[in-house]
Amino acid sequence: MLDSQADALVVAARSGDQRSLARLVSLVENGSPDLRPVMRAVAPHTGNARVVGLTGSPGVGKSTVTDQLVRAYRAAGQRVGVLAVDPTSPFSGGALLGDRVRMQDHATDSGVFIRSMASRGHLGGLSWSAPQAVRLLDAAGFDVICVETVGVGQAEVEIAGLADTTLVVMAPGLGDSIQTAKAGILEIADVFVVNKSDRPGASELSRDLRSMLAMAGHDKSWKPPIVLTSAATGTGIGELAERVADHWEWLGKSGLRQERRTARAREEISAIAVADIRRRLGGLPGESRLDELAERVAAGKLDPYTAADDLLAE
Amino acid sequence: MLDSQADALVVAARSGDQRSLARLVSLVENGSPDLRPVMRAVAPHTGNARVVGLTGSPGVGKSTVTDQLVRAYRAAGQRVGVLAVDPTSPFSGGALLGDRVRMQDHATDSGVFIRSMASRGHLGGLSWSAPQAVRLLDAAGFDVICVETVGVGQAEVEIAGLADTTLVVMAPGLGDSIQTAKAGILEIADVFVVNKSDRPGASELSRDLRSMLAMAGHDKSWKPPIVLTSAATGTGIGELAERVADHWEWLGKSGLRQERRTARAREEISAIAVADIRRRLGGLPGESRLDELAERVAAGKLDPYTAADDLLAE
Repeated sequence: MLDSQADALVVAARSGDQRSLARLVSLVENGSPDLRPVMRAVAPHTGNARVVGLTGSPGVGKSTVTDQLVRAYRAAGQRVGVLAVDPTSPFSGGALLGDRVRMQDHATDSGVFIRSMASRGHLGGLSWSAPQAVRLLDAAGFDVICVETVGVGQAEVEIAGLADTTLVVMAPGLGDSIQTAKAGILEIADVFVVNKSDRPGASELSRDLRSMLAMAGHDKSWKPPIVLTSAATGTGIGELAERVADHWEWLGKSGLRQERRTARAREEISAIAVADIRRRLGGLPGESRLDELAERVAAGKLDPYTAADDLLAE
Repeated sequence: MLDSQADALVVAARSGDQRSLARLVSLVENGSPDLRPVMRAVAPHTGNARVVGLTGSPGVGKSTVTDQLVRAYRAAGQRVGVLAVDPTSPFSGGALLGDRVRMQDHATDSGVFIRSMASRGHLGGLSWSAPQAVRLLDAAGFDVICVETVGVGQAEVEIAGLADTTLVVMAPGLGDSIQTAKAGILEIADVFVVNKSDRPGASELSRDLRSMLAMAGHDKSWKPPIVLTSAATGTGIGELAERVADHWEWLGKSGLRQERRTARAREEISAIAVADIRRRLGGLPGESRLDELAERVAAGKLDPYTAADDLLAE
């Protein structure tokens, strides 16, 4: 793609053309070399969107919470982008979280863009692709970008690193939620959402969360609030949007907003640089120095560290 | 650690001293620089163990299946190592899958070594640490190494890349098992295990699996068998061990065994090289060129690709 073509696509996406934006996001999903001119073109238009991450186990109602948040932001006149990232499906490639169905609700609303992305397992996965997709939506002028992901450890942490504000969504009746949550969840959650709060066990779940928070203590001035919602009916979504706004304000006052964004850019640059090097190291299977070394390591004739040194020395 | 100390530790581990082996595995978990001399010392002793991967959703009974397999292999006079890898808990550090409890069953049996490893999220996570831990157990003379992990996408695929034979464990009554399984599972499973087969829905689950397999077709001569087990009572474990043995034999005949092991070494060398480079690129936060670039990218003054180029040019 020529620089002029990349520019034209970016201009179209910025003017509200969703097809152009979708095409740009596909470049990220496919790891296209065309991203270089595109990213050059979008850079001056980035840094304005607020990024809200939503994570949680399957079945807690993340998509419903996201949808209700989208409605709330739209009602307030904000343009909203949604990236649904599915780290559990490196193979498939798109549309896994039902974005087609979800899109229909907002089909006539040019102020909403919804897209799901699969992690294809190449180039470093989500840590490589998600920040670049966020960057594109940011440049396209969305005020809020919701990044939704299934909570599964590493991916969860990566998404938290990407967001200004991370919501951890839970629901009663999924016995393992606190259990699987464990320590990690405390480190990434800016706001806890107890969804399906009309179901039995919701108050116990909030209480458990509260005591977990109390035990963990807080080494910073933000104490993660716990918001009870029933996203199916919209209950609690107004309060949730307020808590997210509070956190955004706190980020600004504390100076952490800038710090988090610099950290995010740091990760993004690293991921691109590492993917680049990995590509150079790998060469074509069967033809590279790496294959030769791998055969010797597999045969026990060489250790992998010496092999790595050898590879890097080239 | 001096080369002589590393050598002594390796000699002790190879002579059956489990504390020495545990110390070596801890070096991997901690990303210790002492791994270099250790890996040099173990290289000539590797390549003998069979690596069996077990993956599946939480609740399907993976650990029980693993435990029964361990018993079966022990009954056949084989030494067995178990690595329980928990990719969902990058924070915590060890003992998450209850290895202490599980150890007690085999506490007096020096032919069994059980260890859980958390993915600490540094240095490239599981793709960096798991193969090195396997390498240590291999060198310590275990005939079979079972690597058990929760099935969550990317990690699952990495573990499959590590094993000679990958078992995908499922159970009836976890509504989502086929749903979440999707296409990916077909690509990694060498043997399907339908555990808890005494429960309602087991035959439907096998039938669904069979038709999924039929639809997918097979481009290679190995057709993944489906084995029904009830690991709590040991039912079906004998057959499972036979199917695993069949697969091992097939791998040898087809030449794929060597191919897979070379591919594994390839990934291992790459992961070490990339971790090395990442360390060099990162420098200390606040002091490095990367931070300076990250600030400019966060401010929209620079795109991340140009920043990555700049970083690599140094």
